[in-house]
Amino acid sequence: MAALRARTVLLTGSNRGIGLELVKQLLGGPRPPAWIFATCRDPEGPRAQVSACLGSQSPFSVTADVANPSAIADAAKIVEGKLNGAGLNLLINNAGIYAQVSLETVDSDEMIRTYKTNAVGPLLMAQTFLPLLKKAAQNSTEKGLSCSKAAIINISTVMGSIEKTPESFCKPVISYRCSKAALNMLTKCQALTYGEAGILCVALHPGWVKTDMGTQEADLTVDTSVRGLLSVLPVLSEKHSGNLLNWEGKVIPW
Amino acid sequence: MAALRARTVLLTGSNRGIGLELVKQLLGGPRPPAWIFATCRDPEGPRAQVSACLGSQSPFSVTADVANPSAIADAAKIVEGKLNGAGLNLLINNAGIYAQVSLETVDSDEMIRTYKTNAVGPLLMAQTFLPLLKKAAQNSTEKGLSCSKAAIINISTVMGSIEKTPESFCKPVISYRCSKAALNMLTKCQALTYGEAGILCVALHPGWVKTDMGTQEADLTVDTSVRGLLSVLPVLSEKHSGNLLNWEGKVIPW
Ligand SMILES: NC(=O)c1ccc[n+]([C@@H]2O[C@H](COP(=O)([O-])OP(=O)(O)OC[C@H]3O[C@@H](n4cnc5c(N)ncnc54)[C@H](OP(=O)(O)O)[C@@H]3O)[C@@H](O)[C@H]2O)c1
Ligand SMILES: NC(=O)c1ccc[n+]([C@@H]2O[C@H](COP(=O)([O-])OP(=O)(O)OC[C@H]3O[C@@H](n4cnc5c(N)ncnc54)[C@H](OP(=O)(O)O)[C@@H]3O)[C@@H](O)[C@H]2O)c1
Repeated sequence: MAALRARTVLLTGSNRGIGLELVKQLLGGPRPPAWIFATCRDPEGPRAQVSACLGSQSPFSVTADVANPSAIADAAKIVEGKLNGAGLNLLINNAGIYAQVSLETVDSDEMIRTYKTNAVGPLLMAQTFLPLLKKAAQNSTEKGLSCSKAAIINISTVMGSIEKTPESFCKPVISYRCSKAALNMLTKCQALTYGEAGILCVALHPGWVKTDMGTQEADLTVDTSVRGLLSVLPVLSEKHSGNLLNWEGKVIPW
Repeated sequence: MAALRARTVLLTGSNRGIGLELVKQLLGGPRPPAWIFATCRDPEGPRAQVSACLGSQSPFSVTADVANPSAIADAAKIVEGKLNGAGLNLLINNAGIYAQVSLETVDSDEMIRTYKTNAVGPLLMAQTFLPLLKKAAQNSTEKGLSCSKAAIINISTVMGSIEKTPESFCKPVISYRCSKAALNMLTKCQALTYGEAGILCVALHPGWVKTDMGTQEADLTVDTSVRGLLSVLPVLSEKHSGNLLNWEGKVIPW
């Protein structure tokens, strides 16, 4: 199996759940990146396990609330300084929120809050880090698209698949589903826009995972899910760009 | 061809464009509804052609800014009063906004503004008018689902189809595409939620239409588009609920 050769990686929501496990497994892998920027909205907060368990030069903990445009811009400045002329190979938009609301109980504020974090956040992250992603693509001698060269990975979900909605509608989670359908659309638009610049764009479904969001009833341990995701990343190429795949690399319909 | 037999109809954004033409053709049809509630955000404004050209008992002009939850609640009270115990057969969520923005030029505010009108608005309209739609379904002796009995029609667009995005990406319109992909997801969730209560839920693409939004370069006159939409409505049944169809009744993939 191909190994991920991204030298510089940035993730959002890396203080717990899937994000934290991604940091751990990236660090423990056969060829750890030179830089892992483990961003979260409160690196000093009680839930900030990254700095606690891994506090070192890399992963470098950066504050980034993805629902706050100016916080994203501030984070980009810090990362650019640390990279010192190098580019960013891999941006993983992992941060997300989820509320148990139905069509009956949801309101406008909940719809907007979730959209802001789950769809607008990833858009702004990519927009802001685009110069660094482009630099990585330009500095690479690789042909085609890959996560080792330059890529945006949006952590989405099968619950954002309109086609698959009837299968999981026991949990309506309207605000979440609508935001992730929009994230899937964003991923397609990013692939069509950024492909020319040499940047791969893919949406990934991690499975139903035992985290705070997934609950302990979920199918997969966070270890299994993240092992899956990290084995999919190195095989992604231009033929996958603009698609939604699961942690086993299978395409999910829109 | 079957005729639409909805006795009570409510539309949003009915002061111009497709909404206004829907009002005109509904009124001019073989069996006009007893009540048409032609809502718009400013019935007294310069663009309010409904009251000017059609001002009568029905269509009854009601103020409803779909981006304002309390304005929607106020409109529902007025409509309920006028209906005087009758239900609402057909809710057409037509109001929408569109901005020429790309991934490069879009910002958080534009993303939120468009989502609020194009996705959250239709959600709140359906939520608020649900008791009246349910009443119409209960009062009907018809089996199955239909627009004559009780239905929510969301005016969406092929630009909200992730699958079809590569075909029209010369216009990126990111905020619009993401909001309409979310609206398509909403339509599927509404179909799954409201079907039991006897309410049909369908998303319709009107074609590319010569309106302020579509510009004069568009393919279809507003007359042709609306004739198409109004010939699709009467043939819709449970087998269409939760789908996106165009003005000719053809299914569009997600
Ligand atoms: N678990 C599952 O079954 C499952 C299934 C499908 C998809 N996913 C997706 O996988 C991703 C990670 O989920 P998870 O299960 O690890 O969830 P989780 O355990 O609830 O963790 C969510 C992470 O997102 C962060 N976050 C939330 N809002 C943020 C904001 N505005 N700015 C920055 N960070 C923010 C949280 O930080 P705080 O600690 O500051 O709140 C936390 O680090 C999400 O995108 C989720 O939708 C999960
Ligand atoms: N034209 C096309 O080619 C095309 C193609 C696909 C889909 N569509 C869809 O068709 C629908 C109608 O489009 P159109 O071409 O008739 O557009 P339009 O000519 O620009 O008219 C838009 C209508 O929506 C109303 N509106 C906007 N924001 C509103 C709000 N917050 N509350 C209430 N009303 C609001 C406008 O009212 P004001 O006068 O107050 O602004 C106006 O009546 C939209 O949903 C659009 O996305 C159009």
